[in-house]
Amino acid sequence: MFEQLGLIGCGLMGGSFALAMKRANLVKRVVGYSKSPSTTARALQLGVIDVEAPSALLAVSGADLVLLAVPVAATEATLKTIRHLISPDMLVMDVGSSKRDVVDAARRVLRNNMSGFVPCHPIAGSEVSGVDNADAGLYNGKRIVITPIDRTSPAKVRQAEMLWRDLGCDVITMTPESHDTAFAAVSHLPHMLAFALMNSITSQPDGRDYLSLAGPGFRDFSRIAASDPQLWRDVLIANREEIARQSELFERAMAQLRRAISDGDGEELKSLINSASHARANWRLTRDAH
Amino acid sequence: MFEQLGLIGCGLMGGSFALAMKRANLVKRVVGYSKSPSTTARALQLGVIDVEAPSALLAVSGADLVLLAVPVAATEATLKTIRHLISPDMLVMDVGSSKRDVVDAARRVLRNNMSGFVPCHPIAGSEVSGVDNADAGLYNGKRIVITPIDRTSPAKVRQAEMLWRDLGCDVITMTPESHDTAFAAVSHLPHMLAFALMNSITSQPDGRDYLSLAGPGFRDFSRIAASDPQLWRDVLIANREEIARQSELFERAMAQLRRAISDGDGEELKSLINSASHARANWRLTRDAH
Repeated sequence: MFEQLGLIGCGLMGGSFALAMKRANLVKRVVGYSKSPSTTARALQLGVIDVEAPSALLAVSGADLVLLAVPVAATEATLKTIRHLISPDMLVMDVGSSKRDVVDAARRVLRNNMSGFVPCHPIAGSEVSGVDNADAGLYNGKRIVITPIDRTSPAKVRQAEMLWRDLGCDVITMTPESHDTAFAAVSHLPHMLAFALMNSITSQPDGRDYLSLAGPGFRDFSRIAASDPQLWRDVLIANREEIARQSELFERAMAQLRRAISDGDGEELKSLINSASHARANWRLTRDAH
Repeated sequence: MFEQLGLIGCGLMGGSFALAMKRANLVKRVVGYSKSPSTTARALQLGVIDVEAPSALLAVSGADLVLLAVPVAATEATLKTIRHLISPDMLVMDVGSSKRDVVDAARRVLRNNMSGFVPCHPIAGSEVSGVDNADAGLYNGKRIVITPIDRTSPAKVRQAEMLWRDLGCDVITMTPESHDTAFAAVSHLPHMLAFALMNSITSQPDGRDYLSLAGPGFRDFSRIAASDPQLWRDVLIANREEIARQSELFERAMAQLRRAISDGDGEELKSLINSASHARANWRLTRDAH
């Protein structure tokens, strides 16, 4: 049981974490800070946090657990604000969707004081955002990727693992590098494709009419296009090299399909679709509460 | 009430139509034909059809309603086989996802005998296929696009509209051309993107590991990649011009995102994602039973 959670960022991810910790009786008190005072006030009103902190530093003061739930590009600045109060017995975690940049920021700012920082990525996104959508069940049944580095204390990693498991999560550990490569392929690039599809359709004079005809396939395919712009702006820029690499490989796969289509080569096209269809039909979400 | 449905193609779409017609008491008898005898036998066994026909022509014999539920590339050959028994008082419909090629095939084969042919596209796809997945509720609450041409009898169009409405569908009418443009944008291109993403990931040495990490966003985005290869091979080739045009517009939208990312231009990137996110958040499936 933690005495005090210092929550920096009271949006969907941070707010849901606070609610989950409270529901599981894992924390006594939540002190929250958000860049926007109205968000912090709303978090208090909704019972997501117990105390409003006027600054990130004051949210950390007295905490034995700190969660950074800010867009990844704000990680470095946030760590700078709080570093003086970070102590080795504190467990500090983030929830960013990219990990190399977060780890690099932590190295630069925390230097020899980063043993208690455990980088985390919960695979529990949603196309809704904001504290009003905070949900104590968001993380339950989901997977959490932890990406410790050589300077991370193994004891802190174990503490973080235990905490997430207590919230009903499945925890796996990988390096920040392999995390970023894998998620460029299965998450970041798909988001880009969904954003581009929406923009491509709405840029056409009759785009609205086309959209009114779209069915369930489009609904599911495009759901992630509604994701939080600031969060995704940061992730796409933070992981740009890996995304560029995945984008190139994707472009090759598109070119193969395009060629088979324009050649009217039914055999080749069927075989390409077969591979895709087979791979997708055999894929299962490893763990999911829904 | 129809006396006899001649069902050509007893897969997911055809089988579900037969079951829906029976459940709604709209047909007395279903005579079915499939290219593969084992499919027809299975359809009989499952109660999807009442009588097995040894040929498409014999399925049409005595029918007052005919449904072509074959891959769109098979439309012309199928119409050739049955044209001698098609009479003006018969309602003949198809369920293909592309419409210009279907209408062209009908013009070539049926010539002056096509007044009873009403081209239809039910927006009710599924990533599963085959008669074993046939479902009496597949069309309920879904939208049907009807694309009549000048030679189509208005009375037959009204009959088709009534039939689909009796099955719980929302019916809209458009030209085959505008249908194909719109669906290239909201359905055919998204399928291509989903196929290409799966192929791109599985072509990488560590692709399997990446897939094991994928979450709910990937699940929804990629669902349509599991669609029936033969059906989609035909649709992508049939509608290739419109798909190429949409593919080009999509490529421009991707290039905009790529440029903002590689320039690290957060302002521009956020504004691009904002447009996409806003458009998707404000989109609603016009009608859907789920």
